[in-house]
Amino acid sequence: MKHHVLKKLEWLSQYGKDDQNGITRLVYTDAWHQAQLALKMWLEEEGFSIEIDAVGNLLASIRGSSVPDEIVLTGSHLDSVVSGGIYDGQYGIIGGALAIISLLKKYGPPKKTLQVAAFAEEEGSRFPYAMWGSRNMFGQAKLKDVEGITDADGISLKDAMRKLGYSGKQEPKQNVTAFIELHIEQGSVLETENKEIGVVHSIVGQRRFLVTVLGETNHAGTTPMSYRRDAMKAASMIISRILTLADEAGDPLVATVGKLELEPNISNVVPGKATFTLDIRHTHQYALENMTRLAATKIHSIANQQKVDVQIEPWFTSEPVSMDEKIIKLLSESCERKEIPYKLMHSGAAHDAQVVAPVVPTAMIFVPSQSGISHSPLEYTTEFALEKGIEVLTEALHQLAY
Amino acid sequence: MKHHVLKKLEWLSQYGKDDQNGITRLVYTDAWHQAQLALKMWLEEEGFSIEIDAVGNLLASIRGSSVPDEIVLTGSHLDSVVSGGIYDGQYGIIGGALAIISLLKKYGPPKKTLQVAAFAEEEGSRFPYAMWGSRNMFGQAKLKDVEGITDADGISLKDAMRKLGYSGKQEPKQNVTAFIELHIEQGSVLETENKEIGVVHSIVGQRRFLVTVLGETNHAGTTPMSYRRDAMKAASMIISRILTLADEAGDPLVATVGKLELEPNISNVVPGKATFTLDIRHTHQYALENMTRLAATKIHSIANQQKVDVQIEPWFTSEPVSMDEKIIKLLSESCERKEIPYKLMHSGAAHDAQVVAPVVPTAMIFVPSQSGISHSPLEYTTEFALEKGIEVLTEALHQLAY
Repeated sequence: MKHHVLKKLEWLSQYGKDDQNGITRLVYTDAWHQAQLALKMWLEEEGFSIEIDAVGNLLASIRGSSVPDEIVLTGSHLDSVVSGGIYDGQYGIIGGALAIISLLKKYGPPKKTLQVAAFAEEEGSRFPYAMWGSRNMFGQAKLKDVEGITDADGISLKDAMRKLGYSGKQEPKQNVTAFIELHIEQGSVLETENKEIGVVHSIVGQRRFLVTVLGETNHAGTTPMSYRRDAMKAASMIISRILTLADEAGDPLVATVGKLELEPNISNVVPGKATFTLDIRHTHQYALENMTRLAATKIHSIANQQKVDVQIEPWFTSEPVSMDEKIIKLLSESCERKEIPYKLMHSGAAHDAQVVAPVVPTAMIFVPSQSGISHSPLEYTTEFALEKGIEVLTEALHQLAY
Repeated sequence: MKHHVLKKLEWLSQYGKDDQNGITRLVYTDAWHQAQLALKMWLEEEGFSIEIDAVGNLLASIRGSSVPDEIVLTGSHLDSVVSGGIYDGQYGIIGGALAIISLLKKYGPPKKTLQVAAFAEEEGSRFPYAMWGSRNMFGQAKLKDVEGITDADGISLKDAMRKLGYSGKQEPKQNVTAFIELHIEQGSVLETENKEIGVVHSIVGQRRFLVTVLGETNHAGTTPMSYRRDAMKAASMIISRILTLADEAGDPLVATVGKLELEPNISNVVPGKATFTLDIRHTHQYALENMTRLAATKIHSIANQQKVDVQIEPWFTSEPVSMDEKIIKLLSESCERKEIPYKLMHSGAAHDAQVVAPVVPTAMIFVPSQSGISHSPLEYTTEFALEKGIEVLTEALHQLAY
């Protein structure tokens, strides 16, 4: 069954389309609001009943015929990064809706309520507070947690929300019995391994640090090597050591130094200061903390040996989350039955699913991203792969709700 | 004999004094021109005859009584960096003039002509062409070499010069028989070793490169370590390896990575590109080239191993220069006689002396820089040390010109 998902993605992409042919649909902006309203009208026409909650999450339901109070949820986020692609987030919403519509056509109303969510905010692109939509909906973030949080123009999250009529105050959602998020992989593992579907067994936890190395600024010609306290030298030793350790540890551990700044950053001056970010991820708590400890030990011992001072400031932390064993099994068996090449894999990126998983049995379905490109107008997934993802989701929703 | 050198330095510092209490006296600016004219008037009053050559070098002479065509030259540069100190450059001019004045008072006119030079330009701070003054004076740079060279405002070196009446066309200076440049060390070797005078035996040669490492930009979460071509990782391995090799080589070799830029330089993105400068200096040609070759070999082998591409572009080269053995001996013996603690040392920084040395027997005298600080309003040398430097210079000029 063809869902014509691409046509629908292109239709919703008109809200937030930017100059670079990307989508810029930051939460609570006009583009975002227009997308939400367009989605609402489409789903109303398809027979869903619509609720928009106190933070702007859109919940479209097909009421269950026998146990309507038990909700089987799917969906993803409506917001985008600045100049993102047309698949990230909205594929999970549209794909979820198309799956439910096809189930209705084929089997009539479900026993449990089927619901698709368009979470208000996941990316943290406008306000420095990622996954606000799902966090608030599942009781993991309250209005007071975002007090004082503003966008680049100084507009507070609270004011932006209230302007659209969302009070931000609601009770946590109680009666969801399962959640499956359909999403693009945003990496190149599926493509490289020639798999059509990724069944996610866990989402990595993250530890992000800002490391500051303080040495001494000196003349590059008149300062003998033995006099130097070279922040670039110490930083390069630290970075090469930690990234080599990460190589040795291998999957699912990843470590990244994505940003580095030198001071004064002049070719003929020995740098007095180096500041760099360190991002460590792993699917297991102990392994994540073990690498974090090991990195800190290396940082301090190299700093000591190089006679520089060092500061390690944590600035973002999230814990690894496991997906639900039963839903993982259901998705895997469905791929096997359909002879779809699939891979049991972890997610190295953050998703709404990690917010929902601690309170609701949750799983994720990945489809391949061409060349692993995401957060870019060049983001691309074949329509064939998009349809496969919906096919697997449809069967799972059928098993869970009928 | 007290020369009151500090009072004189402070007097000349009024031309170019800036907001940060530093001196900004870029060549051919109004501040620079005022300083040149003030110097001219002072030295005329002291009995010097003044010549200002075709690029604005000021040459103040006391004519020799028996061999006036043989010139014993001293001096340094009149220009400064942006917000430099009051010692760099002008100490060599004022110190040279005070030395000659004291010789005149004590011994009357010299046999050979004594001359102090205020070189127009050494720093390369306004135009990207260092040591223009001495280079032109000694026939190592002609007007055609600076064609098209402009300052940050687009004013050409040639136009800036012609506005002050300098044509830029002259024959190389022929009859200089010795040159001694008095300068602050701009490093902390003398201070650390408790020496009052540095007798410079050589000036380092330099090789400066821009190294570009090209890997692949990737998502920091979804890209397994084994998939990565991480430009930051390769760069950190290269930098730590080369700087460790430089440590092992030790004095007089120095190597510096002063500037590094990552792209895209975002904490959760594996860097696709790293660009950094590499500055290698040594007093001996073979050792300099040997380290340069070794560095290039390491860069290519690490790049190869890390599956990244690499480019090494040379952008500045200068050759090591030896000072004249006879003048080095004369200066050293003078320090010994006077029981001044001195050190035979090299200069890791560039100076006008390296331009003059290939054509004229040349030497340099260094005085300590507090904490090695230079090119800063915090640059400082005690008046005691400044006077010592002049004392040693005075005796050397006496021996060479009387």
